[in-house]
Amino acid sequence: MKAAYIQNGSVHVGEMPDPVPGKGQALVRTHSCGMCASEAHFLHSGETIIGLSKVHGGPYAGLDFSRPFVPGHEYVGEIIDYGPGSKRTVKAGRKVTSIPIMRQSGAHAIVGFSHDCPGGFGEYMLLDEDMMLEVPGDLDDDLAAMTEPLAVGLEHARRGRPDKEDVVLVLGCGAIGLGVIAGLKLMGIAPIVAADFHEARRSLAIAMGADIVIDPRELSPYGPLPDFGDRRANLIYECVGLPGLLQQVITGVGFGARIVMGGYCMEPEQLLVFAAQNKRLNIQFAGGEEPEDMELALRAIADGRIDVRPWLGTRIGLNNVRAAMADMSNPLSPIRTVVDPRGL
Amino acid sequence: MKAAYIQNGSVHVGEMPDPVPGKGQALVRTHSCGMCASEAHFLHSGETIIGLSKVHGGPYAGLDFSRPFVPGHEYVGEIIDYGPGSKRTVKAGRKVTSIPIMRQSGAHAIVGFSHDCPGGFGEYMLLDEDMMLEVPGDLDDDLAAMTEPLAVGLEHARRGRPDKEDVVLVLGCGAIGLGVIAGLKLMGIAPIVAADFHEARRSLAIAMGADIVIDPRELSPYGPLPDFGDRRANLIYECVGLPGLLQQVITGVGFGARIVMGGYCMEPEQLLVFAAQNKRLNIQFAGGEEPEDMELALRAIADGRIDVRPWLGTRIGLNNVRAAMADMSNPLSPIRTVVDPRGL
Repeated sequence: MKAAYIQNGSVHVGEMPDPVPGKGQALVRTHSCGMCASEAHFLHSGETIIGLSKVHGGPYAGLDFSRPFVPGHEYVGEIIDYGPGSKRTVKAGRKVTSIPIMRQSGAHAIVGFSHDCPGGFGEYMLLDEDMMLEVPGDLDDDLAAMTEPLAVGLEHARRGRPDKEDVVLVLGCGAIGLGVIAGLKLMGIAPIVAADFHEARRSLAIAMGADIVIDPRELSPYGPLPDFGDRRANLIYECVGLPGLLQQVITGVGFGARIVMGGYCMEPEQLLVFAAQNKRLNIQFAGGEEPEDMELALRAIADGRIDVRPWLGTRIGLNNVRAAMADMSNPLSPIRTVVDPRGL
Repeated sequence: MKAAYIQNGSVHVGEMPDPVPGKGQALVRTHSCGMCASEAHFLHSGETIIGLSKVHGGPYAGLDFSRPFVPGHEYVGEIIDYGPGSKRTVKAGRKVTSIPIMRQSGAHAIVGFSHDCPGGFGEYMLLDEDMMLEVPGDLDDDLAAMTEPLAVGLEHARRGRPDKEDVVLVLGCGAIGLGVIAGLKLMGIAPIVAADFHEARRSLAIAMGADIVIDPRELSPYGPLPDFGDRRANLIYECVGLPGLLQQVITGVGFGARIVMGGYCMEPEQLLVFAAQNKRLNIQFAGGEEPEDMELALRAIADGRIDVRPWLGTRIGLNNVRAAMADMSNPLSPIRTVVDPRGL
């Protein structure tokens, strides 16, 4: 099959072996797949990331830096066939997405971070039939491909256990932060404060449901909020993932604040324990989405409760993956570029 | 008055001004005062600690390294008099302890970490009458002086919100760890696992109510516990406070574990955020005791529910403070040396 793949820290486009489904595995033709910052990050720091993951776990633990793998874990595709002995839970021809985990046929892998389970930057994928969600036939492919990144934000949002008394602050308005905002809004939480250095991102935050947006160069997001009776945020979602930010949050927040760590930071983070103790802070680490988050994300996209159309930028073929990935760290880029591997 | 005081990083014994009580302040003659590791730590790293506290808060923020102060925040003493206009809540001649906070008469200070509110290593103290607890007349002074350090452990214990389903692990069996164990036991939590490198400390842990003790050189405290059906600790109290331990805990524990940070570490701590995210960990930072913890600690010591007699080592006069403080980091030292400033 044709695919964009990563090997030795660079992106290549070429032929990869056609995946062959085993028992419980669906063969799926990719229609659309979002591009995530984690893939761009891997290009620069892949060897370190694999080494750390082998010790501490995480999606990269099964990778060999020198061997090719097809990335892409935010996908939607069409069922082509199943491996022998499968339950065939969704009919051939129907569209599906899934949590990017493969547990069938002896494979224990993360789809898109595996040498055996290629991701959505290739023409074909294998999906675990027990992990699949059927996508409504009339739902646009690119919107459906946003199910997984949105689900990550929904997981983070609920992991913070927000309640009606909280003033919530979301730091960083990339895909994860925007998903958190959407999730909080769906839960009826208000006010939602969002902070980002970039105006385009702040506008997206408003579109997703933020009540107030802050440029941290103009106003401390931790300080009293003039629009909300000088209340201060007490539940902070860190959705940036840059080293040093955690301690900034600890220094900035008030007594008893809760911090949800959503930003996936592979560098060691420093913090002053006693500073967090003085304020009796709580840090909840948020991780990947669970099936309930995927189901809610897909339903909310399909019925229009969460509108992810503003996330979408260009739609590209395989030959443009390399350039688009290089541009991912540019904050003026769209939230998501989607790849259609059926085209070059 | 005679006092042991700290100035420029060393311990001196000599005359300090007699404190004069203002409105709402009691003048108290010290009977007994425990010696805490935080005071010894200050001798080595005081300037750094003051600098960090000025930025991040904490008990040391009001200190000037070059000026003398009388330490000691684990005290019991006898009411001598009150400042004019006080409520005189406890009669003269009665014994009291208190949370070491002074908010009366314009002073906002930590007793024992202040140039204005001397601690229990001096003959006299000033206490905030609204913070005082009357100590039963027949309770031994040295046991009553354990109220404050025990209360710290009780605060940590409840801050972790333990429940009947938890398998609890206490790392480090100094005063704080032992107080946590006592607090958990009082709450009916079981099993309580305790880990310490030193046999004497492990014996104390058993005495305070631990169900099993572990020498980390022989068995990983995070691993399956053979005595408890191979269950693993899921609620970990870090009561050591050495840099590097937090990441060790993150690496060692299983999915969904909660960590209570009790050890007061003034050095920056490093952690790998993604490793904590992979396991959806929660870190609750525990701080100083609150009035409810002081009340429970005093009641439980007085009625014998918590027996702190094994904590007590020698009773010294002022001239031995310097040597005793130098010996505090020795794990074979008793949990608490108490100072009676009425004697030299």
